[in-house]
Amino acid sequence: MKFDPGSVHALTCDIFGTVVDWYGSVAAEVQRIGLPVDGGAFALAWRAGYQPAMQEVRDGRLPWTNLDGLHRRILDRLLAEHSIALPEAEAAALNRIWHRLTPWPDSVPGLTRLKAKYTITSLSNGHVALLVAMAKHGGLPWDTVLSAELFGHYKPDPEVYRGAARLLGLAPHAVLMTAAHPSDLRGARAAGLRTALVHRPLERGSGGAVEPWDEGEFDVVADDIEALALQLGA
Amino acid sequence: MKFDPGSVHALTCDIFGTVVDWYGSVAAEVQRIGLPVDGGAFALAWRAGYQPAMQEVRDGRLPWTNLDGLHRRILDRLLAEHSIALPEAEAAALNRIWHRLTPWPDSVPGLTRLKAKYTITSLSNGHVALLVAMAKHGGLPWDTVLSAELFGHYKPDPEVYRGAARLLGLAPHAVLMTAAHPSDLRGARAAGLRTALVHRPLERGSGGAVEPWDEGEFDVVADDIEALALQLGA
Repeated sequence: MKFDPGSVHALTCDIFGTVVDWYGSVAAEVQRIGLPVDGGAFALAWRAGYQPAMQEVRDGRLPWTNLDGLHRRILDRLLAEHSIALPEAEAAALNRIWHRLTPWPDSVPGLTRLKAKYTITSLSNGHVALLVAMAKHGGLPWDTVLSAELFGHYKPDPEVYRGAARLLGLAPHAVLMTAAHPSDLRGARAAGLRTALVHRPLERGSGGAVEPWDEGEFDVVADDIEALALQLGA
Repeated sequence: MKFDPGSVHALTCDIFGTVVDWYGSVAAEVQRIGLPVDGGAFALAWRAGYQPAMQEVRDGRLPWTNLDGLHRRILDRLLAEHSIALPEAEAAALNRIWHRLTPWPDSVPGLTRLKAKYTITSLSNGHVALLVAMAKHGGLPWDTVLSAELFGHYKPDPEVYRGAARLLGLAPHAVLMTAAHPSDLRGARAAGLRTALVHRPLERGSGGAVEPWDEGEFDVVADDIEALALQLGA
């Protein structure tokens, strides 16, 4: 069945990797402050701790902890592994690089086009304060910021996707989850949302691996967010 | 103690009456669709049912009901009182006028100035879907939409003000509640927020009453939202 762009009223967008370049932004910050490590490798290691940390929350081994808290736990472990002793103020400042990641070049123009036709929101595992800071830093033109924090669950738990549709006053099938990650989109689809995959081959730097997916698995596949806007007639 | 605009990082703004003109918008819609009533008097009666309806929720006589639900209960009662039988689709459409109220002329330019210096959000008893629709309709440039709905409490319950500060990652005293209604600001102040009163003498039409307040009761008093921006140096 062909996907009808007129059947959706809102786009909920993943942020890390989909709208902003965490790899490049974190690597550059690590180099800028002069940590004695490879910036790209440090960024990858930091991000690699993210899914296991959320799983600790999901399993109840850790109470609800926002991404500042999870990022900081991972950072402290990485610094210890590299025998780097960073003053508290500098560690706290470095941890906040995740609040001001750089958008991909197509993100702002693409979202601006989409906003004229649809309601557009974030739907990220980042907390509200982080997402608001990110939007101000990068000029992301959200109609509103939605976050896993509002539902007390991390994606891909179904509560997040269903909760977003409920807050938007829409049936799940009227919401298009937009993400670079098949695992996120599979969670959204299982919750009844429509799905748009955005290619981000450079998410983990050049030569980095991307999650595989099957042809036809998602409603829309686009090369970037401007291309997605054009495909949706926005 | 003089108020320091540099001590706050975010403005949380009441919507109905403060940013948008519910009286004029509802009165015009009632006349446009040809209800055999005085538009202004109907708007006032509709709004008069609002505080008692929220009190029913607060007292547990009614489960959590969003403003669409509360507005519709009041509308149905008013229509019955006027012996007006409106087809369901028309009643539902009329109820949605509360999603597309017109901003006061100073609201968009004032908020645009404030956004350059502060994080600006709604903090309304309207639900998220209503506030997103209102922002799109009127071009309100929020950084994000915050609503009583997210906290399961209606203003002036303290949970709403404290919850907004928490989601913004700020101490309550770093948040400036902005409203035309002293009762709202007193709730915010009791929860630890700073307060800005915006004069809206025409909220209930010309000659309508406004809630009294004491001189010096609030941190800032401004003639409108552009004037507030100027007073805050934004």
